[in-house]
Amino acid sequence: MALFLVRMDVSIPYDLDPDVAADTIAREKEYSQDLQRRGVWRNIWRVAGEYSNYSVFEVEDADELHEILWNLPLFRHMSCSVTALAHHPSDISPGVSGTANE
Amino acid sequence: MALFLVRMDVSIPYDLDPDVAADTIAREKEYSQDLQRRGVWRNIWRVAGEYSNYSVFEVEDADELHEILWNLPLFRHMSCSVTALAHHPSDISPGVSGTANE
Amino acid sequence: MALFLVRMDVSIPYDLDPDVAADTIAREKEYSQDLQRRGVWRNIWRVAGEYSNYSVFEVEDADELHEILWNLPLFRHMSCSVTALAHHPSDISPGVSGTANE
Amino acid sequence: MALFLVRMDVSIPYDLDPDVAADTIAREKEYSQDLQRRGVWRNIWRVAGEYSNYSVFEVEDADELHEILWNLPLFRHMSCSVTALAHHPSDISPGVSGTANE
Amino acid sequence: MALFLVRMDVSIPYDLDPDVAADTIAREKEYSQDLQRRGVWRNIWRVAGEYSNYSVFEVEDADELHEILWNLPLFRHMSCSVTALAHHPSDISPGVSGTANE
Amino acid sequence: MALFLVRMDVSIPYDLDPDVAADTIAREKEYSQDLQRRGVWRNIWRVAGEYSNYSVFEVEDADELHEILWNLPLFRHMSCSVTALAHHPSDISPGVSGTANE
Amino acid sequence: MALFLVRMDVSIPYDLDPDVAADTIAREKEYSQDLQRRGVWRNIWRVAGEYSNYSVFEVEDADELHEILWNLPLFRHMSCSVTALAHHPSDISPGVSGTANE
Amino acid sequence: MALFLVRMDVSIPYDLDPDVAADTIAREKEYSQDLQRRGVWRNIWRVAGEYSNYSVFEVEDADELHEILWNLPLFRHMSCSVTALAHHPSDISPGVSGTANE
Amino acid sequence: MALFLVRMDVSIPYDLDPDVAADTIAREKEYSQDLQRRGVWRNIWRVAGEYSNYSVFEVEDADELHEILWNLPLFRHMSCSVTALAHHPSDISPGVSGTANE
Amino acid sequence: MALFLVRMDVSIPYDLDPDVAADTIAREKEYSQDLQRRGVWRNIWRVAGEYSNYSVFEVEDADELHEILWNLPLFRHMSCSVTALAHHPSDISPGVSGTANE
Repeated sequence: MALFLVRMDVSIPYDLDPDVAADTIAREKEYSQDLQRRGVWRNIWRVAGEYSNYSVFEVEDADELHEILWNLPLFRHMSCSVTALAHHPSDISPGVSGTANE
Repeated sequence: MALFLVRMDVSIPYDLDPDVAADTIAREKEYSQDLQRRGVWRNIWRVAGEYSNYSVFEVEDADELHEILWNLPLFRHMSCSVTALAHHPSDISPGVSGTANE
Repeated sequence: MALFLVRMDVSIPYDLDPDVAADTIAREKEYSQDLQRRGVWRNIWRVAGEYSNYSVFEVEDADELHEILWNLPLFRHMSCSVTALAHHPSDISPGVSGTANE
Repeated sequence: MALFLVRMDVSIPYDLDPDVAADTIAREKEYSQDLQRRGVWRNIWRVAGEYSNYSVFEVEDADELHEILWNLPLFRHMSCSVTALAHHPSDISPGVSGTANE
Repeated sequence: MALFLVRMDVSIPYDLDPDVAADTIAREKEYSQDLQRRGVWRNIWRVAGEYSNYSVFEVEDADELHEILWNLPLFRHMSCSVTALAHHPSDISPGVSGTANE
Repeated sequence: MALFLVRMDVSIPYDLDPDVAADTIAREKEYSQDLQRRGVWRNIWRVAGEYSNYSVFEVEDADELHEILWNLPLFRHMSCSVTALAHHPSDISPGVSGTANE
Repeated sequence: MALFLVRMDVSIPYDLDPDVAADTIAREKEYSQDLQRRGVWRNIWRVAGEYSNYSVFEVEDADELHEILWNLPLFRHMSCSVTALAHHPSDISPGVSGTANE
Repeated sequence: MALFLVRMDVSIPYDLDPDVAADTIAREKEYSQDLQRRGVWRNIWRVAGEYSNYSVFEVEDADELHEILWNLPLFRHMSCSVTALAHHPSDISPGVSGTANE
Repeated sequence: MALFLVRMDVSIPYDLDPDVAADTIAREKEYSQDLQRRGVWRNIWRVAGEYSNYSVFEVEDADELHEILWNLPLFRHMSCSVTALAHHPSDISPGVSGTANE
Repeated sequence: MALFLVRMDVSIPYDLDPDVAADTIAREKEYSQDLQRRGVWRNIWRVAGEYSNYSVFEVEDADELHEILWNLPLFRHMSCSVTALAHHPSDISPGVSGTANE
């Protein structure tokens, strides 16, 4: 499995139809929570003061990550930046080998 | 408790005494693992391809966070950028209230 | 309590209905002054020459800060950047311990 | 009187003589606290996780501000960025006129 | 008196009504020239090749500067960046003391 | 397998011992060519005019990528930036499914 | 022949007519695949999480590259950045001379 | 005479009336070619892959340069950045003195 | 004559011999004041809080400007950025024609 | 033939041996003038006020360009940025086809 940190910055056009906006936001929430329940969208945090979040995804590969992000209901109103994560040699989480580079 | 995402970028001067460098790195690892065991340094991930990490800290407040980072053995050879995290309204983790702003 | 420095940069679309704009600005002022009276919004300064301000907030945590900013009447027409503040070891204000890192 | 927000980012060369560094830092603290006692250096906050601070100065003018910053013992090891502050029309602090632009 | 260097970058929306644009530009010129005659707007230079200018203002303080800029007829179609100026120790202009820091 | 685009920018300190530099560069070349022969380092192109390259790696995951880059003989004298690549829906290469998002 | 790495970032206006958008995207795909079949558009990778790609082109010269990019059906809705590639001295691909600079 | 390097980045709004756009582009070309024939617009190169150019102008002074650029039919849809050029001490072009600084 | 706005940012290496530094700074001041007396270096202002200045030069052309800056005693310890200035159509200074573009 | 615009920014370490520096600069000049005589280095202009130049090269391809720049005596003390140039449809220079995209 592959871990990615994603920062999403949302910018909904101020003149978007309010009903369209509300519906899109509701579908976004449902979409996110479904992926959280399946263990794919492992973490989501709000960036304090911004319409943004940092999220951690655990997926098969970058193809799966891209398909998930591309299909976000808000995708066309956000920008995403993706960071590929590797295991850190100081990490004590179970399952992390002790042989990573230090 | 307060959550912070911290990105640390390490840059050890190439002409630093190798023994000093090795000792500092060893103390950094011990320091980090001790805080992980105490549940303060909740996550640490390596940024693939860089001498950098993203970490999540759960602390009392920004004062505790600063004291932790300031005392990192590698602190003077790194730059840190801190993001204050808030709960996200789509987060399904237990303990997150359903009343956050959407 | 937690201290945050927030910079807000306002950009009202030039073709926004003037009455909507005026009403939003009036509600923003009322909202801000109410929080100032409650001691939460401790300082607000205009950045000279810009439709921007620097503000200091004293809140419970990042969740409260985010709720305050998210509900600003002008929130959708501004960008915010948040800096978590810690006590400075040189600060002589009463109540600041003398043991902070130097 | 004039208000300025100043961000100072300190970067002490890693090979600076430790005694020189310690002495400079001690003089910096004394210098700062003297100006705080005189009401000139009104606020100083640590930027969490960085060797930086945000400070508010109340001075006669930019000449006085520059003389204060230029004579900081750490001045040659820091970079400063200065923002001129004006009164904000929403500010309820006593002494702020109600006629500022909104 | 306080000196400020201001860079103004104008960006008039291409679909703004041409009469409104022309009227605003005419009022901007009149406004600027009135302040020049009063000795407040000491210099104005065009940045070659850009719809921008660098200007020097001599005002009481940042409040007066902000009021002047905020009321520019083109203010909502420009961005301003302000630099607080201090006397330079090498300056030979009359009235500049010889005691400034070098 | 996972694909990554990596940009490497090399900056060898001008006062590094020339023999050390020459040896490091020779080992870097051998290291790179060995990985190319194993099919891991799929492409390497020089950025014209810069001591930089763009490279494509095909690895198991970000952990393997990080281990490869971390062990580059020149790693401490370069900065790397990593982009996770996904299959493009317009790509006609054999083996790319026709179901990717467009 | 000349090699270029091109990054394309697509941004389709949210209020573009959906049929126009769909038709443009379909023509873009056809256009790209035709150039891939002719060996000109050698690689195309999706940047994971973004409406962007990195592509490698093998063309006669910059004139041919520009004509190809300029005529992309999506050209007016994207920004391109072009990097001229040279052969790398460590490259073991057949046809690369061993005399390039190291 | 004065030499300037100018980079122009054109961005025509996608919803501009196509006839207006075509007419403006045609007038831009005529305007440019007239100045080229008069020896003022000495060089114009397309930036490969972008709706941009680098141009060299030989004019009396910055006033003449500004008047030329300001009157470009596409001026309101482009951004320009201007670099003042001086003779280079290594330049062997006739008429360049050998006494420039090296 | 040609007008240029120049921003100079000085950064003297902290380990430069103090006598060399003091001598260079003294020669810089003399050099600047000589050019001010000759009317070439028309203005010099300190950027408050920084080892920087904004200056206005009135010279024959960019060659003369470059020769002046290149020969600054501190030139190798500073970075300069140059903006070519044109007359502004709102400028009421005597000698500025009323025909500049608005 | 291929055209490239190259910006070179030189930064010679202040503590480089003055004889080494002078010798390197002399060889740089000879190297540049030789390439100018051969028609490869078509233009070189000083960026006014900076230790920088903009140059135009006419070479076979990016490989030749890279070899030229890589072997500059000052290469290790400069940074280069390269822009691939294409013919502009408005260019009236002889030999430019009238069929380029407009």
